[in-house]
Amino acid sequence: MNQLNTWQQWMEYGNISIPVILLKHYSSLGINEEECMLLLHIHSFVEKGQAFPTPDELAERMTLSSPECFFTIQGLLKKGVLEISESSAGDVREESYSLMPLWNSLINKLEKENQREKIETTMK
Amino acid sequence: MNQLNTWQQWMEYGNISIPVILLKHYSSLGINEEECMLLLHIHSFVEKGQAFPTPDELAERMTLSSPECFFTIQGLLKKGVLEISESSAGDVREESYSLMPLWNSLINKLEKENQREKIETTMK
Amino acid sequence: MNQLNTWQQWMEYGNISIPVILLKHYSSLGINEEECMLLLHIHSFVEKGQAFPTPDELAERMTLSSPECFFTIQGLLKKGVLEISESSAGDVREESYSLMPLWNSLINKLEKENQREKIETTMK
Amino acid sequence: MNQLNTWQQWMEYGNISIPVILLKHYSSLGINEEECMLLLHIHSFVEKGQAFPTPDELAERMTLSSPECFFTIQGLLKKGVLEISESSAGDVREESYSLMPLWNSLINKLEKENQREKIETTMK
Repeated sequence: MNQLNTWQQWMEYGNISIPVILLKHYSSLGINEEECMLLLHIHSFVEKGQAFPTPDELAERMTLSSPECFFTIQGLLKKGVLEISESSAGDVREESYSLMPLWNSLINKLEKENQREKIETTMK
Repeated sequence: MNQLNTWQQWMEYGNISIPVILLKHYSSLGINEEECMLLLHIHSFVEKGQAFPTPDELAERMTLSSPECFFTIQGLLKKGVLEISESSAGDVREESYSLMPLWNSLINKLEKENQREKIETTMK
Repeated sequence: MNQLNTWQQWMEYGNISIPVILLKHYSSLGINEEECMLLLHIHSFVEKGQAFPTPDELAERMTLSSPECFFTIQGLLKKGVLEISESSAGDVREESYSLMPLWNSLINKLEKENQREKIETTMK
Repeated sequence: MNQLNTWQQWMEYGNISIPVILLKHYSSLGINEEECMLLLHIHSFVEKGQAFPTPDELAERMTLSSPECFFTIQGLLKKGVLEISESSAGDVREESYSLMPLWNSLINKLEKENQREKIETTMK
C-alpha cells in the first residue's frame, strides 16, 4: 500500500528528456560534470514550469552550496551556454533561464565536425 | 542543407529519459555531481543497447580520465547504486551494468521520507 | 537562418517521456489507438503545465472533432484510466486531469501477469 | 516484495521520448491516430534496438490485426513519413525502419508556417 504511494510519487515527478548529443559533447564545449549537472537541474525546473530557480533551490538538490551554485551559474552565463531572458507583464518583470544557447552551441559543434569530415574526405 | 544533416544527426542520437526523482535525491544518497553524470552516461549507453561501456568510452565523453572513470565506477559499485550482471550464452560470458540498485535506493529513500512524515503527522 | 529558428522552436516545444509499458499493454486494458493518443495528448498538456485541456484544444491536435474528444474522454473516465481532480484556492475551483489511474492499471496488469507466471512455474 | 519486482520491470522497460511537435502537428500531415500510434510503436522498437519489427510484433501491441498493421505501414511508406533502409554486412542483408522522413516533414511544416507568418506580418 505504502509501496504504491511511493511509486505514485515517482510517477508524478515524472521524467525529463535530455538529448544524447549533450552527453556526448558537453566536455568538448568546456563544460565539466558539475556544470552539466547544474544545467540539467535548470532544464528540469524549466520543463516542470519553474523558469527561474534560485541558487538556494538548486543547492538543495546538489552537493554544492548556494553561493557555489551562484558562481557556477555566472560561469555558464559567461561561457554563453545559458541565458537569462526578461519579460514583463504590466508592472511585473519576470526572469527565466533559457538553454537555447546550449542547444545552439551543440548544433554548431556538430556542424563544424561534419564540415571538417567533408574536407578531410575531399582531400583524400 | 548542411544544417539539415546536422539536425538529422541530432534526431538520430535521440533523447534519453531520466527520472526527476534522481535529480531531486541523488545528493541525499551520497552521490556527487561527477558520480551522477557517470551514472547518466552509463544509463545512456545501456538504453542505446551498449550494456557494458568501458572506462575509455566513458572517459571520451567526460572531463575525467579513463583511470578516474574506473575508480569512480568502483566507488559506485561499493556504494551499492550500480551493479554488474553476468550472463552467458554458450562459451561467451557477457557483462552488463544495471542501474536497478540506484532506482531501488531512490524508491527506498522516498518510502522512508513518507513514513517519517506519517509518523510526524500522527504525533501532532 | 530560418532553419535555425525552426529548430529552436522544435527544441522549445521539447519532448515528453512515455513509459514503454503503456505502449506494450494499453490494448490489453481495452484502450484503442484513438483513446491512447488522446491520453498521450492529455499527458503532454499536463506535463507542460496545462492540467485541464478543453475538448477544443485536444481536437485541434487530433483528427477527432471537439464533441468526439468529449465523448472519448467520457469513455476513458468510465473505463477508470483517467480521473478529474478538483482543488480549490479561495473562491477559485480548479480541475485537472490525472493519469494516475492509467499507471495504476498498468502496474496491476503487470502484477497479475507475474503472479500467473509464478503459479504456472510452480505447477510444472 | 512482488510489488517491487513489478516496479523493477516497469523501470527495465524504461521510457521513450517523443517530440511534442509530433503530437501538435501529425494531423496536419494527414496522419490519423492509428497511424500515429503505429509510428510510435515503430519508434519504440527502434529505440530499444529492434530496427525492423514485423507486422505480427506490432499487432501484438495494438488493436489492429497483423494484416491491418501491414497495410497501415504501406500507407505510411506511401505518405513519405516512414522509410525502409537496407544495409548489408557480408551476405546478410538487414532492413530497418527510419522515422527521419517524419521528422523532416514536421520541420518543413514548421518552416512553412514560420514563413507564412513572416509574410503576413510584412503585409500588415
